[in-house]
Amino acid sequence: MSSSETDQQINETHRPNLRSWVESANDRTTDFPIQNLPYGVFQRSGEMPRGGVAIGDYILDLSAALREGLFSSALEPTARLASASTLNAFMASGLAQQSALRRRLSEILSADGRERTRVERLASELLIPIRDVEMKLPAAIGSFTDFLTSIYHTERGGRVTRPDSPIPPPFRHLPIAYNGRATSVRASGEPVRRPNGQWRASDGQVKFGPSEQQDFELEVGMFVGRGNALGQPISIEEAPEHIFGFCLLNDWSARDMQRWESALGPFLSKSLSTTISCWVVTAEALAPFHAPAFPRVAQDPKPLPYLFSASDQARGGLDINLNAYLLTPRMRNERTAPWLVSRTNFIHMYWTFAQMLTHHMSNGCNLMPGDLLGSGTTSGPQDENRACLSEITGRGAHAFALPNGEARIWLEDGDEVIFRARAERDGFVPIGFGEGRARLDAAPAWPMTKAS
Amino acid sequence: MSSSETDQQINETHRPNLRSWVESANDRTTDFPIQNLPYGVFQRSGEMPRGGVAIGDYILDLSAALREGLFSSALEPTARLASASTLNAFMASGLAQQSALRRRLSEILSADGRERTRVERLASELLIPIRDVEMKLPAAIGSFTDFLTSIYHTERGGRVTRPDSPIPPPFRHLPIAYNGRATSVRASGEPVRRPNGQWRASDGQVKFGPSEQQDFELEVGMFVGRGNALGQPISIEEAPEHIFGFCLLNDWSARDMQRWESALGPFLSKSLSTTISCWVVTAEALAPFHAPAFPRVAQDPKPLPYLFSASDQARGGLDINLNAYLLTPRMRNERTAPWLVSRTNFIHMYWTFAQMLTHHMSNGCNLMPGDLLGSGTTSGPQDENRACLSEITGRGAHAFALPNGEARIWLEDGDEVIFRARAERDGFVPIGFGEGRARLDAAPAWPMTKAS
Repeated sequence: MSSSETDQQINETHRPNLRSWVESANDRTTDFPIQNLPYGVFQRSGEMPRGGVAIGDYILDLSAALREGLFSSALEPTARLASASTLNAFMASGLAQQSALRRRLSEILSADGRERTRVERLASELLIPIRDVEMKLPAAIGSFTDFLTSIYHTERGGRVTRPDSPIPPPFRHLPIAYNGRATSVRASGEPVRRPNGQWRASDGQVKFGPSEQQDFELEVGMFVGRGNALGQPISIEEAPEHIFGFCLLNDWSARDMQRWESALGPFLSKSLSTTISCWVVTAEALAPFHAPAFPRVAQDPKPLPYLFSASDQARGGLDINLNAYLLTPRMRNERTAPWLVSRTNFIHMYWTFAQMLTHHMSNGCNLMPGDLLGSGTTSGPQDENRACLSEITGRGAHAFALPNGEARIWLEDGDEVIFRARAERDGFVPIGFGEGRARLDAAPAWPMTKAS
Repeated sequence: MSSSETDQQINETHRPNLRSWVESANDRTTDFPIQNLPYGVFQRSGEMPRGGVAIGDYILDLSAALREGLFSSALEPTARLASASTLNAFMASGLAQQSALRRRLSEILSADGRERTRVERLASELLIPIRDVEMKLPAAIGSFTDFLTSIYHTERGGRVTRPDSPIPPPFRHLPIAYNGRATSVRASGEPVRRPNGQWRASDGQVKFGPSEQQDFELEVGMFVGRGNALGQPISIEEAPEHIFGFCLLNDWSARDMQRWESALGPFLSKSLSTTISCWVVTAEALAPFHAPAFPRVAQDPKPLPYLFSASDQARGGLDINLNAYLLTPRMRNERTAPWLVSRTNFIHMYWTFAQMLTHHMSNGCNLMPGDLLGSGTTSGPQDENRACLSEITGRGAHAFALPNGEARIWLEDGDEVIFRARAERDGFVPIGFGEGRARLDAAPAWPMTKAS
């Protein structure tokens, strides 16, 4: 079975008329219909973290499903990996096994499955309400790489700093990236502290204190499935075998610090924390939402051969609607709904994830199962597609108004940033990502008191 | 006990007249006299990796020492951490415990110790010849950060790219750094493969293939001891408590790729591999070799308060002689000795490790025990202090001759790069780092054949 057959083909698990006996999964507004089946790691109070699958408002507890003998002996080892406290080994298990598990999960949860009566009787064992658990990071993330793959984000930023040549010369030749900090990636829900840091003020003075230009970046994250050994690149044809699935990613960015420090790229302006959504939507779940690479404009010049394959050009893009919302403390108090600050689509990205991954491994750099690649800010061509505050406010030049009369240029303490995403296409049931959200808390006081 | 008392004070373990019953440790040319006592992880064929201490030509096997009951009940837990297959937990155990273990190891190995007769009788149990083992990475390295702390290296590079302002503006205000790849750090001895990659040739064409400008960078690495939690910076006064020890580090760099790709800092030009020496020389072992921060010139402007402490200014520098050697395949065949290409000293560094660490944590970024910080290329003011080929050859403008008549501009396949270092000061026994060495092998063939 070739990779394109396993990860990109639409099969019976994607059928739009498929329904689940878990009723909340049949609601057209749910992120987690039976066509999605994303994996995550949850923790119930007093229990160990373990793996499960989101279905409607519930988690299918894979440990319980294993106990109840719902998997064949051929599938049981794979289901066991997916039930672990980190999904790294499951991510490494390969697309064929993962696809087989998906088919079985679809059967188990189907309203029309032959086993419905038997399985539904176990519902109280198998299902845990999502609202009753704490979601954990889905993997032990060994490395985190952040790319710069929106030409629109790049161009809007470059217009200010490099007006003659807003797009850096390598942009159209390779997916630009830098190493992020895997160790400061945190699960959705965990608050983030505004960083202290250094920047040069407009009067030329170098200052140290809480960043005054705290921003978010709306990104998509990709989890590596099968890894590669150091010194062993892969071809772009092989890349889909190494792509496990996707999440939402907030690359918190302190713009004042970033502008001043970045002689060798961004560093402390980004490492304060990175927030990701906790459900991993698999590449296979997204099969109906594949699209040509950068379809509106086409990659120009044609990528070098190591970054070019016909199938990637035809189907390497992803049609996913991405939204960012802001919720201020006053809005929270007034029970105002989060306000949509950005609406974009992943189809606007210049490079595909297969190209990012192939380029990343091209020098022999090793990637491991569970490693995380960020797309970079997912801005598109329209004003509403600007996917960070720096773009929205013209790098801080003008404030924008919130519906309750508040205004913002950058984030203020207590502001909450919420990402949501849905893949939607005629003839298919929409699937979502759950939320990636975190509140920005005040910076730690400085100077530090010496620890005893 | 304050941190400056535990890590920086000279005590009886540094006494120059201290000798060991392990005779090879008393040779003035050894890197590992009894005054050093560096930690490492070794593996004997067919056995599990475990921790030990270098003494002369031998390793003191800490597991054997524990079995023989050589540690008090108070010290045994610490010795056990140091005997593990990774030293992360030992690095986290704190300077007071680590200092107590050092005193005990010094007693055990001393020629004048009260227990000499008993201990020496156990020699065949306790000691393993270094030549009989394979050295492993000393820690599971969760993150690797590479700094740019030599103003001489920065200035020589900048003269070409930014002749009007060779030193980037932030250089004198903060220790510039970028996130490296912890997952491609490898132990001394493991060959490195030349990377394939992209660069722009002098005719403007963008090419992909084996890098034609493969370089080394002679650096010092620092292992983090105690970590910090995300969102919790430390003061510079606390920094020494978080510094466990040091190694040599080769930040392999493909210069053609680096120049082309670095819109957000270096990425694939550096992630092919990073080679480190395997013995970790502790901060306490280096107490006699502390020096003022950047003593030849002084940091100017005065660092911002969060990067300034009187004790760091007085003693944050390190007086360590650093040498890089080149051994070509022909030299190997002809049994020519490795040729010294660079001779520098860590005292030329602009920023201290305490400043690097404090800056790194200042935004709340978390560092963990066993995390690795690289100093950046350790070039000094003199021509002989140029610590990478790019500086030595004027960025590839002129070749240099080897003693056997060969010439080099950049590294060629089969070339071996060897780093050695010794801290030497009147009145003290010199201590060394062991070797950091690796051979550069040919790039993998391209295009890749598709895996079955």
